[in-house]
Amino acid sequence: MKPSIPKGTRDFSPVEMAKRNYIFDTIKEVYALYGFQQIETPAMENLSTLMGKYGEEGDKLLFRIQNSGEKAALAPEKGLRYDLTVPFARYVVMHRDEISFPFKRYQIQPVWRADRPQKGRYREFYQCDADVVGSDSLLNEVELMRIIDTVFTKFGIRVSIKINNRKILSGIAEVIGQADKIVDITVAIDKLDKIGLDNVNKELADNGIPQDAIDKLQPLFSIGSLPLSQRLSSIREMLRDSDTGLKGIDETEYIIDTFNTLTTGSGSVNTLDLDLTLARGLNYYTGAIFEVKALDVEMGSITGGGRYDNLTGVFGMPGVSGVGISFGADRIYDVLNQLDLYPKEAVNTTKVLFVAFGEKERDYCLPVLSALRAAGIKSEVYPDIVKMKKQMAYANAKQIPFVCIVGESEMQDGKVMLKNMATGEQQLVSPDALPDILMRG
Amino acid sequence: MKPSIPKGTRDFSPVEMAKRNYIFDTIKEVYALYGFQQIETPAMENLSTLMGKYGEEGDKLLFRIQNSGEKAALAPEKGLRYDLTVPFARYVVMHRDEISFPFKRYQIQPVWRADRPQKGRYREFYQCDADVVGSDSLLNEVELMRIIDTVFTKFGIRVSIKINNRKILSGIAEVIGQADKIVDITVAIDKLDKIGLDNVNKELADNGIPQDAIDKLQPLFSIGSLPLSQRLSSIREMLRDSDTGLKGIDETEYIIDTFNTLTTGSGSVNTLDLDLTLARGLNYYTGAIFEVKALDVEMGSITGGGRYDNLTGVFGMPGVSGVGISFGADRIYDVLNQLDLYPKEAVNTTKVLFVAFGEKERDYCLPVLSALRAAGIKSEVYPDIVKMKKQMAYANAKQIPFVCIVGESEMQDGKVMLKNMATGEQQLVSPDALPDILMRG
Repeated sequence: MKPSIPKGTRDFSPVEMAKRNYIFDTIKEVYALYGFQQIETPAMENLSTLMGKYGEEGDKLLFRIQNSGEKAALAPEKGLRYDLTVPFARYVVMHRDEISFPFKRYQIQPVWRADRPQKGRYREFYQCDADVVGSDSLLNEVELMRIIDTVFTKFGIRVSIKINNRKILSGIAEVIGQADKIVDITVAIDKLDKIGLDNVNKELADNGIPQDAIDKLQPLFSIGSLPLSQRLSSIREMLRDSDTGLKGIDETEYIIDTFNTLTTGSGSVNTLDLDLTLARGLNYYTGAIFEVKALDVEMGSITGGGRYDNLTGVFGMPGVSGVGISFGADRIYDVLNQLDLYPKEAVNTTKVLFVAFGEKERDYCLPVLSALRAAGIKSEVYPDIVKMKKQMAYANAKQIPFVCIVGESEMQDGKVMLKNMATGEQQLVSPDALPDILMRG
Repeated sequence: MKPSIPKGTRDFSPVEMAKRNYIFDTIKEVYALYGFQQIETPAMENLSTLMGKYGEEGDKLLFRIQNSGEKAALAPEKGLRYDLTVPFARYVVMHRDEISFPFKRYQIQPVWRADRPQKGRYREFYQCDADVVGSDSLLNEVELMRIIDTVFTKFGIRVSIKINNRKILSGIAEVIGQADKIVDITVAIDKLDKIGLDNVNKELADNGIPQDAIDKLQPLFSIGSLPLSQRLSSIREMLRDSDTGLKGIDETEYIIDTFNTLTTGSGSVNTLDLDLTLARGLNYYTGAIFEVKALDVEMGSITGGGRYDNLTGVFGMPGVSGVGISFGADRIYDVLNQLDLYPKEAVNTTKVLFVAFGEKERDYCLPVLSALRAAGIKSEVYPDIVKMKKQMAYANAKQIPFVCIVGESEMQDGKVMLKNMATGEQQLVSPDALPDILMRG
């Protein structure tokens, strides 16, 4: 009898929703400011659209859907959306004739994964993606970095944006003669801070990288603390024989320089830096790779993205490359909570509650209430005739900052008693004066 | 290879999304203005929560969900949300200790039904519900009517709100001695306009209603065109021996009177009237029943609702009654389209596109673009260096109202050429002047 919800799913209460809406609305507003347009796709896709797109592991994590009416023997033909990228690729192919490229779309919708639920990992969660497809210009990367800067500046969260480039990693593997070992090399480099240089070199050797190749890698390990320009010139020197590697450096330099030129003033709390150990989605990204971390909270990546080739090839439409980012709403929610950064306006609901002693008094409140709403002030009246204590408890529970108390004497004077719930201060005011007072208060 | 989406589901393009957001944002804003708070529940619920709540027919229309990882033999234990009411009831029971009653919640989320898809009927569609639970006050009914009036006044859609009351219908069946025939009687009354009085009486007789009972019903059929107050007094006279019936009349009178007192000025385009033939959700509603139709478009009900008892009894929490409404977003979308009522601001996306002739020119545009965005003006630059014609086509396709054209001469003068895409008018302006001009334009 006692109801429950499926494991890994969540209800969102009014306060949680207000905070989540603040996050989503801020991100939507910035996406729109940069010319991105919203789309939505269905929660369910044909299984043929989803299968084989997320690796063997991903196929297992798809939720499948059965019509109740269908024969039980029938294999499911539909599945729940696993991410927003594959439905977007499917959308681009189906709507290619209506789309004016470059297509700058954003999409904020839940996705579902049959992962084992654990702390911070859910079976239903929202993704907030923006992508530009149909343009190879690096300006798109810069614009996405600017979006990240603008969003986190609005949130008041100081972040570092790390950028890397698949082409640089390819170049490194290439110049040491180990192009096919790019993943092993990247994984090892990534561990430098944790396990130290000797262990990194040992791991490389264990993975079958010859000693002369390991020797050639060594300059990389000593440049981490150099200023960016020196790091770039060191890597450029190292990669002088790899066209791919040099292209990766040029791209990174352009993105960082242009970002820095355009990022001034308040936005400069957020920094953009090269991080050669960043290898997120290495099998997927073909150019720039980015990742964002909060500076003042211990937390994993809160935003990420990169450039990819051939988004829609699997659906029979070749030649569409793109670049995208994805904000991690659940983690941003936690960061804003930990740093106590939610603006009061964002979580405030009703501004004033009318508290009446009886039916006559409540009727007296109704036109006053209507006038407040006509002025755009969120307001309500306690609907039942109950003790004042109960009405005040309702105001407290809902964190309503003002109440208007109306008893017989207020009614006779043609006034209301306005009480500030935080200070306890009370004043007898004329209904006509209420909108102004409440808009200021 | 050619991708498709499951039948009965839809993609929403940027223009459709902008219109839908206008609808949802307007409804959300009004709900909040009246003190309602948003919640969200998971897309999937335990099947035990859903089964048996929508009748036998409804059970068949549930989409069931299987984990891919689970053994195929395992029966599905989860299903997709079929409406927002049952998840809300489940929510109230699970969160009863956190909720401060009366609980005024709204919820705007998609629901899924394995119905046969047809024109205007989808397998995935949004519901926009608001309910007040834990209060018997009729003021809640009035507030919901006021919400309907406020929302449709904002939309510019003239509507008639029809109200009826289950208690009046019960009273009618009671005074003619046919309490158990309430459905047959209501169905027959509903057909008066279509089939005429003689056929209605014949249908009543065919359904086993004795002639003396039919005779007693006759006064009802002649009052439809009377003014409301006379209709009410006629029905009151007819129901003088039914406490239930008289209570229904009192309730209806209170709701209509209070609504009319509070509804003045621009809102008065929307009317509230008694309609005895309204029997929507008769098995579910226990008090007021409402339905909204657009006056200027041929279309079914675009909003509806009513009062119900014992929302949460099925989950072991008795005594929670409530009243709610639900806006039909898809139909409102069609009405706004047919009447061409979408405000320009609602569907406008980017305000200005920077069109550059080369890389130098594009770089020159970037800080100007940043300044516009800092001023909150939605703006973008075409990211690739391509022919002006292509850039202008992009502006046209996206219905961007202004472009800033920058060639060598504009750059040398430190200006941009601002073109109004609607009028074709061009003017050379200083970048500093752009924000002001565009905010006015």
